[in-house]
Amino acid sequence: MKAYIGLDIGGTKILGALFNEYGEILNRVKKKTKSSRGTEVVLEQIYKVIDELMEYENLELLGIGAGCPGFIKDYKVVVFSPNIPFKDFDLGGIIKNKYNVPFVLGNDVNVAMFGEWKSTGFTSVSDVLSIFVGTGIGGGIIIDGKIYVGQGGAGEIGHMIVNPNGIICGCGSHGCLEAYSSKTGIRKTIVAGIRKGRKTVLKKYIEEDGDVIKSSSLRKAYEEGDEFAVEVMEGVAYYLGIGISNLINILHPEMIILGGGVMESLGDDLLPIIIKEANKYVMHGMMENVKFQLSKLSDDAGIVGSYYLISSVVDI
Amino acid sequence: MKAYIGLDIGGTKILGALFNEYGEILNRVKKKTKSSRGTEVVLEQIYKVIDELMEYENLELLGIGAGCPGFIKDYKVVVFSPNIPFKDFDLGGIIKNKYNVPFVLGNDVNVAMFGEWKSTGFTSVSDVLSIFVGTGIGGGIIIDGKIYVGQGGAGEIGHMIVNPNGIICGCGSHGCLEAYSSKTGIRKTIVAGIRKGRKTVLKKYIEEDGDVIKSSSLRKAYEEGDEFAVEVMEGVAYYLGIGISNLINILHPEMIILGGGVMESLGDDLLPIIIKEANKYVMHGMMENVKFQLSKLSDDAGIVGSYYLISSVVDI
Repeated sequence: MKAYIGLDIGGTKILGALFNEYGEILNRVKKKTKSSRGTEVVLEQIYKVIDELMEYENLELLGIGAGCPGFIKDYKVVVFSPNIPFKDFDLGGIIKNKYNVPFVLGNDVNVAMFGEWKSTGFTSVSDVLSIFVGTGIGGGIIIDGKIYVGQGGAGEIGHMIVNPNGIICGCGSHGCLEAYSSKTGIRKTIVAGIRKGRKTVLKKYIEEDGDVIKSSSLRKAYEEGDEFAVEVMEGVAYYLGIGISNLINILHPEMIILGGGVMESLGDDLLPIIIKEANKYVMHGMMENVKFQLSKLSDDAGIVGSYYLISSVVDI
Repeated sequence: MKAYIGLDIGGTKILGALFNEYGEILNRVKKKTKSSRGTEVVLEQIYKVIDELMEYENLELLGIGAGCPGFIKDYKVVVFSPNIPFKDFDLGGIIKNKYNVPFVLGNDVNVAMFGEWKSTGFTSVSDVLSIFVGTGIGGGIIIDGKIYVGQGGAGEIGHMIVNPNGIICGCGSHGCLEAYSSKTGIRKTIVAGIRKGRKTVLKKYIEEDGDVIKSSSLRKAYEEGDEFAVEVMEGVAYYLGIGISNLINILHPEMIILGGGVMESLGDDLLPIIIKEANKYVMHGMMENVKFQLSKLSDDAGIVGSYYLISSVVDI
């Protein structure tokens, strides 16, 4: 049985899946990353995931693909990672050496978005932008069917300045897109509004949810027409619209894929407003043929992207 | 004598040059475009430039490259042009048919910037961004050594929103980079300042220059330490810095080339402030290896870019 392994190495867990040559998932394994216990332990956890997946009858492993947070070089070296203890670490060399199969590594957001793109089925579309709106905002750029990283850091679209006199961002800068439209940004806006005494059903929902702000509660409040919730949603879409208009003016892609927790929960409501806002700022005629897609793979995006990455390098 | 022709088809004039196989200019021809007289007349003017350049002893013409303002498709068709009467016009097909040599056409800014990049001599650098600050602000993106246009319109970086609550731009939008840092934007800022009664030597210079605002006068005032001139220059650099930081965060290129009339006159003073401003907004570590270059070719950028474009397609 010819197969590939796709890995999604995260700060808290490692997801792995075995794919047949048609991209169907044959088996899944999940392990804790154990990041706090250092390089060697994390590496052991990765081996465990791979080893368990390889316990498959008549397996002929053709290659392993993986995504990992941080700055990845040459599709194999983790230069640094924000939440995994790898630094200038040649993960590719080590895995290749141990398992003797081709290995390809990419940045986790890039890899996930590569998976989302491949899964749209629009194979003729080869210039694609993807925007991941979660706790932070990241992005992936696909040019001519390949992940584009420039010198390694390309796609940091969450730190595009959308309001130079704006609020402070976690990165230390001012008015970044992420400061407004990420989960973190949304939470801050809601907390600040409630503190200021805005009347909103969100206050009740947050208390019911046990003092957390759930996307589903924001959606419910928005769909009920709660004035403050509408304002929050419009703010999120306004800044995403500006960011996306900049990206279209700069890159004029064929397709934009929106994913991440915020888009998964609120995308159906947000997307029409985002498109309306972006349209105000995009150069005349440039938005007409840009396709917008909401992501579909959710937590599987990383493993699926890793599969597509390795299988596009290793042909059967 | 093996040679190429490079053309720069502008709204008012057509520049052409004959290049030998080493990229040296053997001859130049300049004609009026006569845009107001319609498609056929402009085409005749292009023929005249080519024909005069071909009057060279023992010429073996290997190909013709050209740049033209507007939206260019498939390296041959002018879909539309803001100031040349070509619309869905297969210039490539016509030229190829008449002269029976390979022909390549690109957007004028893209082609000029391709020339600037090739002329830097940094041949190992293949992901390059170029920013043209003139009457408007345009840009060119080179990825993997090739001009990137996306669906055709990529590089409209002058219409990136750098201040969503900002002043109106000629494109109808608000707070575009072009509204602040182009020659048009600078002129507006100076006129508004003087009208408001700002004390500045610029007022005297403008009167001396015959009621025009020259870049050289702005430079003189800035270098003399004129308070308002310093403010104007810092404003220009501030918004260019924001725009460039966005571009680095998005594309992480190896090199950024700054050209156009404003950079040619004021670049030596502006560039250090632009870099300082951009540095405030770029993600940590991403700016270190980005090379900044001022353009060098001035009015020759178009013909030189056209030469590089056609000679990279047609190998001797």
